[in-house]
Amino acid sequence: MFNFTIITDDPQTDARTGIFETPHGRLLTPVFAPVGTQATVKTLTPRDLAESGATLVLANNYHLYLRPGTKLVAEFGGLHSFMGWPGPMLTDSGGFQVFSLAQMRKLDPDGVTFRSHIDGSLHRFTPESAIVSQEDLGADIIMCLDECPEPLDRKYNEDALARTHAWAARCRTAKRRPDQALFGIVQGGVFPDLRVESARTLRALDFPGYAIGGLSVGETKEQMYATLDVTVPELPVARPRYLMGVGAPEDVVEGVARGIDIFDCVLPTRVARNGGLLTCQGRMNLRNARYAADPLPIEPGCDCYACQHFSRAYLRHLFKTEEILGLHLATVHNVRFMIRLMEEIRQHIAAGTFAAFRSAFLAGYHLPDQDVRHAQKEKRRQAANRK
Amino acid sequence: MFNFTIITDDPQTDARTGIFETPHGRLLTPVFAPVGTQATVKTLTPRDLAESGATLVLANNYHLYLRPGTKLVAEFGGLHSFMGWPGPMLTDSGGFQVFSLAQMRKLDPDGVTFRSHIDGSLHRFTPESAIVSQEDLGADIIMCLDECPEPLDRKYNEDALARTHAWAARCRTAKRRPDQALFGIVQGGVFPDLRVESARTLRALDFPGYAIGGLSVGETKEQMYATLDVTVPELPVARPRYLMGVGAPEDVVEGVARGIDIFDCVLPTRVARNGGLLTCQGRMNLRNARYAADPLPIEPGCDCYACQHFSRAYLRHLFKTEEILGLHLATVHNVRFMIRLMEEIRQHIAAGTFAAFRSAFLAGYHLPDQDVRHAQKEKRRQAANRK
Repeated sequence: MFNFTIITDDPQTDARTGIFETPHGRLLTPVFAPVGTQATVKTLTPRDLAESGATLVLANNYHLYLRPGTKLVAEFGGLHSFMGWPGPMLTDSGGFQVFSLAQMRKLDPDGVTFRSHIDGSLHRFTPESAIVSQEDLGADIIMCLDECPEPLDRKYNEDALARTHAWAARCRTAKRRPDQALFGIVQGGVFPDLRVESARTLRALDFPGYAIGGLSVGETKEQMYATLDVTVPELPVARPRYLMGVGAPEDVVEGVARGIDIFDCVLPTRVARNGGLLTCQGRMNLRNARYAADPLPIEPGCDCYACQHFSRAYLRHLFKTEEILGLHLATVHNVRFMIRLMEEIRQHIAAGTFAAFRSAFLAGYHLPDQDVRHAQKEKRRQAANRK
Repeated sequence: MFNFTIITDDPQTDARTGIFETPHGRLLTPVFAPVGTQATVKTLTPRDLAESGATLVLANNYHLYLRPGTKLVAEFGGLHSFMGWPGPMLTDSGGFQVFSLAQMRKLDPDGVTFRSHIDGSLHRFTPESAIVSQEDLGADIIMCLDECPEPLDRKYNEDALARTHAWAARCRTAKRRPDQALFGIVQGGVFPDLRVESARTLRALDFPGYAIGGLSVGETKEQMYATLDVTVPELPVARPRYLMGVGAPEDVVEGVARGIDIFDCVLPTRVARNGGLLTCQGRMNLRNARYAADPLPIEPGCDCYACQHFSRAYLRHLFKTEEILGLHLATVHNVRFMIRLMEEIRQHIAAGTFAAFRSAFLAGYHLPDQDVRHAQKEKRRQAANRK
């Protein structure tokens, strides 16, 4: 269980393909995991997910601990049976959400006390309790409780790192279920020496997999890529590497090139619900009047249900009339886009053509303006903090 | 085309089974049509609809005329190809919506001028224009432009009826496409003499099918059933009879017993989105705390995707967390419930056991309190009028 076998090493980049075995099935890596925060990938049934080719699905311990409660999910035999997803699953510990969503948080060496963003009720996570609730949820891959500080604040990162490392060791000790793999989470903001220290500290604890956290939270893309450049070489070659919360298509391609095996992100599903459709040319805004009479599918050649059955004009009509079916069909497309991207990436690594694919993809993919993206992200963070 | 063949006449009631042939397939009657007002049955894909066993799907001329425009739909080859539904379709003329939704309306003998409920823009429907736009939409069954007055206002009903009859004759003359069947709409409120007059007037115009409009709009159930009792016998036996906007399970059973062949209603899909689930025992409110840990499906024995895969506890979790998947799964169940009800009704008519089925169904089906229903309906009407 949890064997990780590297199949192909790309000679020109640090990309690799592999097989990661979990109790609920094999993951072909690199893999992208759609996010089902509240035990549902928004607007999709498990059947839709399976049809998209998704293999790994994420859920979140913070949200599920608050609603419906992890004990209740345990009574239903865990997340797999509760939400009807038979394949591999991963839960985040909720550390990130405690720091980004909770109304109030008070840290002490033993854990964190916080108020629910839903009703203000008081709760407490410790490394041990985060393991217990993730054992109740029963995902194949579970995460250490960590602290996710502002990436550019040196002092904060130093203090947080000490806690994150101590908590990682305690999570390791607390974990009991043999059918779950506990990953350690490397933190350290954008500071190379802290990242190296973190990777080495966690590596000494010998986790079956390693996550890189605290990225895509406000730093620039250049800073994110540079952080990967210094962090990944410090992680053991033979263990899967998971880049948390990163899933813009261009970042996935760049992450793979730097040796990342697992990605998750709400981006494809979130932008879908705003009418943002992923294509090989970049994001398309379906609300735009230019698509009002457009008979083409979202992306010609795409094999998803939305592209096989509907025109851009019909999908735009659904968005303009605020019909839920629009949110669903856009999500179906975007998830399938990400899964197809991963399939192509694996094929190109296997064929030795990944470096050329990377260049061609990035040349063809029009990026939203970085300032615009940062402004959007900042707005979301502020909105979340105000909650 | 549009042959209607009666297969079985129930000896104990006025129920009957039949086959109504349309250019997009045969309808086994009695049939319930889910409502896809804006060219989408809310939250469902055409595949979901097909899996529910739905055969006839409704759309609305008023809404589609405003958005995206019936000319645009015509450019896409009509509603069937625009929304991806290959089976039989029916469009309402929009008369009801002009009178219930539009911000302002001004009647004259030639038609009605109104302001859009969306943006206040000025528009005009005439009998002829309502036919043209329904020809653009291309549904198999289209409806005359009618006026739907308050059911209890005698003078209003008398005046409206004269217009509705004159407009029916003009719609009949205006209609051109041979692949569409135009139904006349009987009006007359709760007044038996007006209903008889309306049925006889329209019958003289020899429509391929007859609708009964202006019911389930504020009158009591007793008044609705009494109106059917006087109206249906005035309609030709050999033509399909369509009871517009009626689709509560108990009303469908009572309507079938009175000789109705076609039903449509937003009720199953609308109550689903409020967490109201249809079962043989009545409506179940999924938000109720009693279902928080309930491992049963919505309705044991139901073959819908929601009942086959999920517990009441999981579905309640989706509603409590405001997840769109909850709206979808509840809709899947309610539409399937209605289609199964029609399948059972047809089987019982064929087997000569419909009268017993009717008694047993109504004895087992707990009705929401009538005062509560009326209050809800009144609230919705006022909300719509305020728009």
